[in-house]
Amino acid sequence: MQLAEPQDFERVLSSMCTEPHPAAREAAERFLATNPGDPGTYQSVAILEERAVDLLGEVTGHPDPEGYVASGGTEANIQAVRIARNRADTDDPNVVAPASAHFSFTKAADVLGVEYRTAPTTDHRADPEAMAELVDEDTVCVVGVGGSTEYGYVDPIPEIADLAHSVDALCHVDAAWGGFVLPFTDHAWNFQNADVDTLTIDPHKMGQAAIPAGGLLVRDRSLLDELAIRTPYLESTSQVTLTGTRSGAGVASAVAAMEALWPEGYREQYDRSMDNAEWLADQLAARGHDVVEPDLPLVAADLSVPMTEELRSRGWRVSKTGADEMRVVCMPHVTRSMLRSFVADLDWY
Amino acid sequence: MQLAEPQDFERVLSSMCTEPHPAAREAAERFLATNPGDPGTYQSVAILEERAVDLLGEVTGHPDPEGYVASGGTEANIQAVRIARNRADTDDPNVVAPASAHFSFTKAADVLGVEYRTAPTTDHRADPEAMAELVDEDTVCVVGVGGSTEYGYVDPIPEIADLAHSVDALCHVDAAWGGFVLPFTDHAWNFQNADVDTLTIDPHKMGQAAIPAGGLLVRDRSLLDELAIRTPYLESTSQVTLTGTRSGAGVASAVAAMEALWPEGYREQYDRSMDNAEWLADQLAARGHDVVEPDLPLVAADLSVPMTEELRSRGWRVSKTGADEMRVVCMPHVTRSMLRSFVADLDWY
Repeated sequence: MQLAEPQDFERVLSSMCTEPHPAAREAAERFLATNPGDPGTYQSVAILEERAVDLLGEVTGHPDPEGYVASGGTEANIQAVRIARNRADTDDPNVVAPASAHFSFTKAADVLGVEYRTAPTTDHRADPEAMAELVDEDTVCVVGVGGSTEYGYVDPIPEIADLAHSVDALCHVDAAWGGFVLPFTDHAWNFQNADVDTLTIDPHKMGQAAIPAGGLLVRDRSLLDELAIRTPYLESTSQVTLTGTRSGAGVASAVAAMEALWPEGYREQYDRSMDNAEWLADQLAARGHDVVEPDLPLVAADLSVPMTEELRSRGWRVSKTGADEMRVVCMPHVTRSMLRSFVADLDWY
Repeated sequence: MQLAEPQDFERVLSSMCTEPHPAAREAAERFLATNPGDPGTYQSVAILEERAVDLLGEVTGHPDPEGYVASGGTEANIQAVRIARNRADTDDPNVVAPASAHFSFTKAADVLGVEYRTAPTTDHRADPEAMAELVDEDTVCVVGVGGSTEYGYVDPIPEIADLAHSVDALCHVDAAWGGFVLPFTDHAWNFQNADVDTLTIDPHKMGQAAIPAGGLLVRDRSLLDELAIRTPYLESTSQVTLTGTRSGAGVASAVAAMEALWPEGYREQYDRSMDNAEWLADQLAARGHDVVEPDLPLVAADLSVPMTEELRSRGWRVSKTGADEMRVVCMPHVTRSMLRSFVADLDWY
C-alpha cells in the first residue's frame, strides 16, 4: 500500500493543531528515536524536557515551574484531575467545571472514577455563581478554561480559584489552546495573576511545536508527587507521566518552537491571528450572520448546517459548536488569503 | 540554547525502543503534522490507522481486528484494564497479574481505582495456580505477559485465559515488547492460539516504528465501545483513545514499518536478535556469571552491581532487574560487533 499524502493545511479551519515552526519540525525529526520516558538511557532529551518546563514557566508566569511535556491536553487534564483526586481525602470525589470545558474532562471522570458536574455558562464564559452551587466538601478540583474549544472564550480564573480554595479543592486551568496567546491579552489566567494550582498548556497547538507536545504545569513539586509510580527496569526510579515511553520528538520540538518564538514571535502571530479572526467576523456579520464576537482567535457564527456541509463538500475542513454554529480556528497556518478564498466560496453558495 | 545531540544507539543495551526502520522514519517525518485523534479533519492518516490495525491483526492472528494505535504500551494496558472495569458489574474491581507484569499495571490500578493483585512467578513465568488463588467474583481482568520486561519470558497464556474466563473476567495479554518476535516462536499467545480478549503490541518496540506507536487490539468491537466518549467540536462523534490529539507520525510510521517488514523482515530480525542473545548468554556464562537462559532476545545475568556501574561509566546504557541482575535487550540496533565490544569492556574490568 502506497502511503497517501498527509492532509495539507490549505483548507483546514477546524483544527487546533497547525503546521510546526520549521525549527520545531527539524528538532522533531532529529529526536524521533528518543524516549524521555526513560531519562537514564536518553539523557539529552531528558535535559531538553527540563528546558521545556522552564520555558513553559516563563509563558505562564511561574518562576519555579514543575511539570512535564505530556502527549497533549487530554493527558494533562486527566493528570490534573488525578492529582486533585489523589491528594483529597474523600471516597466520593467530584470535579466542577463550566459546561464549556473540553470533553477530555468527561473522559477524565470516566477513567478516574470521579463525578463530573458542569455548570451553565453565561455569554460563553464560566459563571462562578452557578459553579458555586455545585461545589461541596467532596469537590477535589474546580476547572477554568483559558480559551474554550468552542468559542475561544476565557473564564474568570481568579474567581474560580477563590471558589476552589473555599472548599480546599485545587484550581485547574485548561489553557491547552489559549496558553500561547493569552500572555498578549489582558486576561488573568496564569500562576502569576491568579491563584492557579495546575495548568494545561499545549506547545503543539498555538505553540507551533510538532505533535505530540502537551504540557502539564503545577504550582509546586508536591502536587506532581501525587502521580509517582515506581519504575523497576528503568535506569530512573519513578515516573509521574500517564504514558510510559514518550515522544522525544515532541519534547525537542517544543523547546525549539519556544526558543524561536517566545515572546516576540508568538506576539506577532497573536496579532496576525486576531486580525484575521476580526476580519472574518466582520465579513460574516456583513453577510447577515450572527457572529460570536471573538475574544481569542476563534470565530463562531450562525451559518446553517446545510451551508456548513456545502463548504465541507468544497474541501473546507470546518466543524460545528454544540449549538450547530460553524467554527473557524485562526491557527498560524490560517492566512488572510485562505480566509478570502473561504469567504468567496461562501458567497458562491 | 543549542539543542544537544540526541542519544545515539551505539551503546544502548537497556532500551526496548530502537532506531526506526528507514521507511518508518520517512513516514513519521511526512505525517508529523497530522492528528488521527481528529479523523474527520485528517482523513488520510485515519485511513492509515485502519491499515495499521489490519496489519496488527495479521501479526496477532486476528482476522477481523478492532483497536487503535496508542501512544505506547502503558496507554494500551491502562485501556485494557479500563475496558474490563467498565464492562464488569462490581463496585470493588480487581486485576490479577503475575509479579513479572510491567509497572504500567500499577499505574493503571492507581489511575482507574482498581485493586491490583500480583502472584509470584515460577522460573520467571506466571504460575496459573498461584494466580488462581487471587481471582474472585470481583476480578475483572487477568493479565498474561508475552515477553516480560525483565527477562523476556512468555507466560502460559492459554491457561491464563481459561482462568480469566472461569470468573467471567477478560484475559489481557501484554505483548508490548514481544509481539513482533512471538510469531516466529512456538508460544501460544495471540487471538488465534489462545482465548485472548485484549492485547497490547507496540510497533515502536520490536516493530521498528518511530515513537509514539503502541497498539491496543480487542477481540470484538463491543469491547472498544466501553471506552467511547462523545466528542463535540470534532468532525467525528466519539473517541475511544485515552489521549485526544495523537501523533500521525506514529500511525504512519507503524504502517510503513509493518509493510516493509511483515513477515520476512521481522523473522530475519528475530533470528539475528536471538542469535545475539544466545551468543551473549554463552559469553557471560563462560566468564562464570549466572545467566537466565534467554527465551526471547533478552539476556539477564548476575553481574555485580559495581560491575554494572562500571559499565555505565564506560558509556554503556544497561539496566537492572528487580533482583539486581544486569539486563541486556537485544533490539535491532544491537549488533554482534556492539556486543563484542561490550564483552571486551567487561573483560577489561
